[in-house]
Order: sequence, then C-alpha cells, then structure tokens
Amino acid sequence: MVLLERASELDRADPIAAYRDEFIIEDDFVYLDGNSLGRLPKRTIERIRTVVEKEWAHELVLGWEHWLDLGVEIGDRLAPIIGASPGEVALCDQTSVNLYKVASAGLTHSGRTDIITDRGNFPSDRYVLEGVATSAGGTLIFAPEDPSPKVIESLMTDSVGLVSLSHVGYRSGRMLDAPAITAAAHAGGALMLWDLAHSAGAVPVKLNEWGADLAVGCTYKYLNAGPGAPGFLFVRESLIGAIQQPISGWYAHADQFAMAEEFVPKAGIGRFVVGTPPIVSMVGADEGIQLTAEAGMASLRTKSLALTDFFIEALDQLDPPDVELVTPRNHEARGSQVTVRHTEAYRISLALRRDGVIPDFRAPDLVRFGFTPLYTTFSEAAMAATHLDQIVRTGSYTEFDETRRGVT
Amino acid sequence: MVLLERASELDRADPIAAYRDEFIIEDDFVYLDGNSLGRLPKRTIERIRTVVEKEWAHELVLGWEHWLDLGVEIGDRLAPIIGASPGEVALCDQTSVNLYKVASAGLTHSGRTDIITDRGNFPSDRYVLEGVATSAGGTLIFAPEDPSPKVIESLMTDSVGLVSLSHVGYRSGRMLDAPAITAAAHAGGALMLWDLAHSAGAVPVKLNEWGADLAVGCTYKYLNAGPGAPGFLFVRESLIGAIQQPISGWYAHADQFAMAEEFVPKAGIGRFVVGTPPIVSMVGADEGIQLTAEAGMASLRTKSLALTDFFIEALDQLDPPDVELVTPRNHEARGSQVTVRHTEAYRISLALRRDGVIPDFRAPDLVRFGFTPLYTTFSEAAMAATHLDQIVRTGSYTEFDETRRGVT
Repeated sequence: MVLLERASELDRADPIAAYRDEFIIEDDFVYLDGNSLGRLPKRTIERIRTVVEKEWAHELVLGWEHWLDLGVEIGDRLAPIIGASPGEVALCDQTSVNLYKVASAGLTHSGRTDIITDRGNFPSDRYVLEGVATSAGGTLIFAPEDPSPKVIESLMTDSVGLVSLSHVGYRSGRMLDAPAITAAAHAGGALMLWDLAHSAGAVPVKLNEWGADLAVGCTYKYLNAGPGAPGFLFVRESLIGAIQQPISGWYAHADQFAMAEEFVPKAGIGRFVVGTPPIVSMVGADEGIQLTAEAGMASLRTKSLALTDFFIEALDQLDPPDVELVTPRNHEARGSQVTVRHTEAYRISLALRRDGVIPDFRAPDLVRFGFTPLYTTFSEAAMAATHLDQIVRTGSYTEFDETRRGVT
Repeated sequence: MVLLERASELDRADPIAAYRDEFIIEDDFVYLDGNSLGRLPKRTIERIRTVVEKEWAHELVLGWEHWLDLGVEIGDRLAPIIGASPGEVALCDQTSVNLYKVASAGLTHSGRTDIITDRGNFPSDRYVLEGVATSAGGTLIFAPEDPSPKVIESLMTDSVGLVSLSHVGYRSGRMLDAPAITAAAHAGGALMLWDLAHSAGAVPVKLNEWGADLAVGCTYKYLNAGPGAPGFLFVRESLIGAIQQPISGWYAHADQFAMAEEFVPKAGIGRFVVGTPPIVSMVGADEGIQLTAEAGMASLRTKSLALTDFFIEALDQLDPPDVELVTPRNHEARGSQVTVRHTEAYRISLALRRDGVIPDFRAPDLVRFGFTPLYTTFSEAAMAATHLDQIVRTGSYTEFDETRRGVT
C-alpha cells in the first residue's frame, strides 16, 4: 500500500501528467505494451476522420496536391526527435522494407560484402540483413546480444561494410552505446545503421551527433501512430546523393509526373521513397509525432527514467521469487522498458493479462514492461509490480496452459 | 440534348445503378478519375471508425489477435475477383514493392537474367524491373507500348526469365491478350507477371485460367480502397513454395512469434508478406474489395463496356476537332477507361477540371477518362463528352498556362 501511495504522489508531481489526457483511455488496463502498440491519441481520431470523410470524400484525386509529399514532410517533423536535420528523414513503407532498402544501399556503397548485427536483434532485422549480406556474396556476422563497442571493434574486418544494430534491444530493453559503436564501425571502414524501433519517442536519439549514416524505425510503438503505420528511414545528408536503394519506384524519380523513360532519382531523401504512401495510416503517424514533439524528448526521458526507476525499486522491495531483472540499472544503458526473466514467463504474462496488466512475452523466458512516458503513470507501474509479485508468489499462473498460442 | 436524354434512359435502365448509393457523393464533379483514386464507399467510413475508435482504442495490442493475418484473409476475398484461388493472394506493401518482391523471386527462380516489359508500362514497373534485371546481370528488354503476343514471342530468348506487363495500359486503356501473351512467355521458358493496377475491379481477370505465374496490383483505383492503400500480390499455388522473395521479414516466418534464429519461410502465400501491415489503410481495401465482390465482375464488366461504348459513340457523334481516340473500339482490347489524344491535352485537362469534369492528363498528349462501373453514370459520360467537345471547339483551354505543375 505504501507503494501505491508513493506512486500517487509521483503522479501528482509529474510535470507532464497532462499528456495522458491526450489519449483515449476508457479501459482499466494497466497498459505496459506501448512498446508494441502505442495508445490512440484523441487528436488522431479527428485527423483520420478528416482525411477519410473530408479529404478523400470530397477532394478525391485532387487530395494528392497536398498528400503527395507527406512522407518527406512528416519526416521533417520527426527529424528533431531523432537528432536528424530536416531533409534527412522520410516516412514510408514498413520498417523491414526500409531496412532492406537502406541496408542494401549502404552495403553496395561500402564496396564490401559483410554485415555485423547481434543475436538479439529483432527477427526481421536479422533475416533481412542476412538476405542483404548473402546476396552481396557476403556473410551476416553475429555479435552476442546487445554488444559493447569493444565487441563490435573486435569483429570488424576489411569485408565488413555495414554494422546494423537496434539502439534499444527489443528483448532486454538495453540501450547501446551508440556514439562509441558508430565510431567503431567507422574506424573499421563500415557504415553504421541504427534501428530505432524502441528508441524513437522513447529515449533521446542523436543521429547526427553520433555520426550515424543510416537509420530506420517504427512509428506505432512510442510514437503512437496506430497499428502498422508506416516506418521511417534516415540517411545522413552527405550520403543521400551517393547511395541508391534497390527498389526504384516512381516516387523516387526526380520528375515524378513526367513518367520518363529513364529513372533519374531525386536529389533529396525522397529518392528512398518507393510508391504511393498509405495516407490514412500516414496521418496517424503525423499526429503521434507532433504530440511527441510537443512534450519534448527531454521531459519524456526524465519521466521515462523516473518510471522505470520506480518500477525497478518496487521489484527490489517486493522481491518476487525467481524474477531476475534483465534491463540494466544504469540510466545510460536503459531504454523505456523493463524486462524480467522467469522460467514461467509465458504463463506469468497470461496471468498478468488476466489481472488487467498488459505486458508482453518474449520467448523463452522474458516478460517485458513498456513505459510510454506520454501516458504511463507511476500508479500503473506500482500495480504491475504488485501483480507480478503476487502472481509469482501464489503461483496463480499455473491455471494457464503451457502451450503458446498466437500473438505474444 | 439528345445525348443527355439518352444517357438518362441508360441510367434508369442500369441494373447496378443502386451501387452508386454505396458511395459518398456530395460533390458535383463528373468524376472520371476513379482509375487514379476511387471514391469513398460509405461502409468504409464505419469500418475505419471502428478499427481506430473501437479496436485500436480499446483492444490495443490485443487487436493483433484478429489483425495479424488480415493481409492473407483479404487476399482470399480478393482472389475470386482476379481469377485466383484462396491462398494465392495477399494484401501487403505498396504495388512497387510487391512488384520488386515477386519479380526478383521469379527471375531468380527462372535461372535467367533478362526481363521483357513494354515502353508504355507504368514508370514504377519499368524502373523497378530495370533494377531487378540489372542486379541479376541482365537487361530489361522493351517491347513497343501495349505489345501483341507475336511481339512478345519475337523478343523471347534463352536469357529471358520473366515477362512483366500491365494487363490494361495506364495510358492507352488497352487490354492485352493475356492468355496468348502468357502462353508466349511460357513457350519461351519464362514466367509471366501481370500488373493488374488498371484491371482489378475493372475488367474480368482470370489469372489461373491464363496460367499466370505472378501478379501484382493496386487497390485504390477501381477497388476504391482509399489513398495509397496497400497493394496485392499473387503467386500461383504450385510456385509458392518454390520461390523466395528477397526481403525476408518476420511476417514471412513459419513461426513468427518464435522469433527464431533461422529464417524459415511460411509454406503459404504469407511468405511474401514482409512486415506489420498498415491496418487502418488495409481495412479500406477490405471494404472496397467486398463491395466489388457483391456487385460481381460480370455485371461490372457489362456496365463498364456500356459506359465506354456510350462515351465513344458520343465522341463519334460530337466529333471534337483534332481529338483522336486512343483506346481500342473492340471490347476484348478495352479496359475501363477511354483515352484521347490532342496536342493540347494538358490544358484541355485543366479546362475540364475547371468545368467540373475530372479526368487526368498523361504526358505528352493524352487525356484519360476512367469509368468505374460501381458509381459512374451514363449522364456523367455524356457531360464529359459534351464538355470536351465544347472546350476543344471554343479553345477555352487557352486561358490556362502551358507550364505543367504538380500532380497530374
């Protein structure tokens, strides 16, 4: 009870607590899965209604006069959130497709054949990168999960043209040392590609400060863009004109509506866009990005760390048996999620859902709790810790079957 | 006036006229650009509101329990419209990305290096196919616009692994002889890939009857899915397990949530899906596809031909000076649009828009009028013909500047 009281105090003192009111929250879920799918911002309802019921309905094809370059325009609004400059970011396609595009372009540009990633990288990243390396006649080299700069340094060879890692691990919630890893890649003559899926809107990202060459990321997690909303890609300015992605769509053409014989790519970031963007899903990303920009990454990071600190302290205090903290305690290595390990993680995650706490399970033994600073409260963190402790202590997860099914 | 009276009669006698009421039509446009962006079905408003304001808002991440396989489920609903079987079609990504995926997979499978397309194919198709052929060490061979089976036959060599054409030309509105061209490709040992962007929902498509191997298409034209809604791809059943597309995303994995080390593709059409689909845009496609299925392609084709026949007859009767009919008069070679040529096509298209008629312009000298049988009326066809005739006769297009700008 002391825990919940302390949480209430922290909620009352939270300077960005008001942002929770920007979201539709009509359920009683302790929703700690915003690192999978963010909640619905209220303003997005109106924006999507407008784009469907006014723009599509009444402007019809003339809507393209203002929809056409939305991917690059939204990219400009996203740029400051990830430490990029306007003109370096575009919203388009899904994250895996974007990864394929920029990884292919980067590896080709390097004139080398191998790529380094890590065992813990998101499956799509590992699979896509393996395909890119293999088709270049090279190999995908695996570092252990969440590698240090030294590990990357030790794996560099003259064949490595690209290092591609997730800035924050989707399993561990660990945040890597991006500046040092980027430097290690560069020292070895490779380009550095960051996957920001669990970073954008969650932690401060400084692509240009780090010297990053390429990045991709997703918008439906901490940026609250809506289910499956398009991803984004980043190419540092000096590299944009020098590399060419493999899918030469008409949107990338310097004179799109000339429909010319020859493919002449745009000079700017638009050359990495392929085809007609899914406008109704795009505008959700636009609203989520603008909301994040309004709150500001500094405030969001402060609250994110306070939330995860509080959750970790609660676990320390409650000390649920056999629950091991996976996410680092030190701030500089922590994303905006806390992952714990338990051999019964799958059934524990089901029991948490039964009790109204929504985390997710990652095989074989992880439960991850995502904290979205825009709407997650300290009270939710306290309740999640309390439920986790009780479920483990009472063994109430044993009512569930061990067989894993469907979406986890 | 006789023309408009005759049109009214035809509208009254139209057995599928009621489908126009399925759409939001609150403007006075004579909208003949449904071959660029289809109108908004009323039911789509409710579906999108539901997916955003109920499912995303309240189910949150649990929505993925029913969203996850939507691409394949919608593909099954689209299959009969394009003469495919369930399990052969998936909705995912944009058309250009899908073309890249299946063209790469097909060419690799063929063990050859060259691709045949035609000069008149849509820019994205030409650019993407050129990239695919080049990266295989081969060449993209160009047939003249809208080629006959004989032309394709004459271009076949032992290096040609893939023939990829648009079934209905986006410029000419000409429908190709798909069965004979498919046979010619096969006779030369190549796979046949059809782009159905201007066919799906517009004309009868019989992929399996033709013996087609691969196809892609878009949903936001005659299928009325909404601006930039995802495209679709088709792979004939016996080829699905035999080919592998280059972008190995986690959605394609046989056991997606195992997040396993090794990439093991799904057995079914799902192996051609890459990443998380943009759900809000996907459901628009679902509604548009279901509406098309309800009306039935036979009725839609009958009305489409009646509309384009009537429009062509009106032009014959009015005989606007220097306006040349580009689209074939014979039914078996006609899609669902009528294209005319005039040296002042650009300014004529602007004058038509001024007068409330929305066609579009295709450089350098084409105006195309799209007829969507679900909602286009004979009266609209009559008005478009009348305006075109008057604009050309009076030269009222000369009030516009010749400099082309923006979206055309």
